[in-house]
Amino acid sequence: MPATLTIHDGRLIKGNETRAAILQVAIQIASEEGLEGLSLGRLADDVGMSKSGLFAHFRSKEELQLAVVDAARDLFIEQVVTPARKLPAGIKRLRKLADTWLAYAQGHVFRGGCFFVAASMEFDSRPGRVRDRVCELMAGWLAALAAEVRQAKANKELAPNADEQQIAFEFNAQMMGANWAFQLLKDKKAFARARTAMMERLESFAPHRRH
Amino acid sequence: MPATLTIHDGRLIKGNETRAAILQVAIQIASEEGLEGLSLGRLADDVGMSKSGLFAHFRSKEELQLAVVDAARDLFIEQVVTPARKLPAGIKRLRKLADTWLAYAQGHVFRGGCFFVAASMEFDSRPGRVRDRVCELMAGWLAALAAEVRQAKANKELAPNADEQQIAFEFNAQMMGANWAFQLLKDKKAFARARTAMMERLESFAPHRRH
Repeated sequence: MPATLTIHDGRLIKGNETRAAILQVAIQIASEEGLEGLSLGRLADDVGMSKSGLFAHFRSKEELQLAVVDAARDLFIEQVVTPARKLPAGIKRLRKLADTWLAYAQGHVFRGGCFFVAASMEFDSRPGRVRDRVCELMAGWLAALAAEVRQAKANKELAPNADEQQIAFEFNAQMMGANWAFQLLKDKKAFARARTAMMERLESFAPHRRH
Repeated sequence: MPATLTIHDGRLIKGNETRAAILQVAIQIASEEGLEGLSLGRLADDVGMSKSGLFAHFRSKEELQLAVVDAARDLFIEQVVTPARKLPAGIKRLRKLADTWLAYAQGHVFRGGCFFVAASMEFDSRPGRVRDRVCELMAGWLAALAAEVRQAKANKELAPNADEQQIAFEFNAQMMGANWAFQLLKDKKAFARARTAMMERLESFAPHRRH
């Protein structure tokens, strides 16, 4: 930290660091027990703070839940999206997104598997700001997959009849299926199966095949 | 009810009918709010009974959760499995299982979408009897799909290289993906997309194609 920072700035940084540390604990609780299981009382115990200390960072349970969703999004981008962005847009990046996603879901970034699969399921019947935020992020993820399919068609890496919405839907489904089979059934082959499904599906749209 | 029934039998039947009626309410609460959201107090309010009246039927929250899982299984068998069993084993029954499942998931059998997708996600990180039961039922579902693929290969309806575990995994994933997209994103095309994915996957293993 530069020595020229004022006390005010110093306090702000400390506050932000504390907030980030709290969120890391909260993400892990939420990934296993759900965002609704994330009470301020429980979290205060786990991070060793008073409930009123926590209230200084998050004014309500909903604010905490929204902050956790955004922190999980940052982790997702860092683990899944950023490594894939190093590859050219199109089929290479699409394949890489499949691989980084599968690595993320089995790599114990979140104790209870993919945070967003769990949060989606938990909030699909609970209207409100948390549901809206999860929805927006998930729609963005499907759109990101679809954009790579579109680019792959433009690059002539996939045949013109490859439907980007369809393929984005299928990729997301295979990822969810893998996360489910690994978390519930402890099926270690689940990630390889999802990968096979996605890669063979892309192969079926290879431009040199007859359609 | 035959007039020859003793009072004891009559009371037993009444008890079973009440229990079944309670379970129908409980299933709907659980499909939206989760099995953990199913408190005896909440359920007592919803069915208009006292908590102690409920305790006569279910001795604990866990007993109630297990009874709800079994009642949901009965509904699943009635809606998804039984109609498909009318068709011959193999590819016809497999396609029918895909269709009955998709109809079940969009047909509002459960208010919150497929009960088992929700229960799987909720309990994957919660060890205990409820998790074990859900696991057992889900493994049975995957095995039922795999058995139809095996029979389809024996019938020469699918090529010998069709892997039954792989196809069962993929079908289940597409179903989960459809349930997710419909429940969270209200995507009405989700069921048609899942159906396209499954039918085209079977087509890729048609025995007349070169592999």
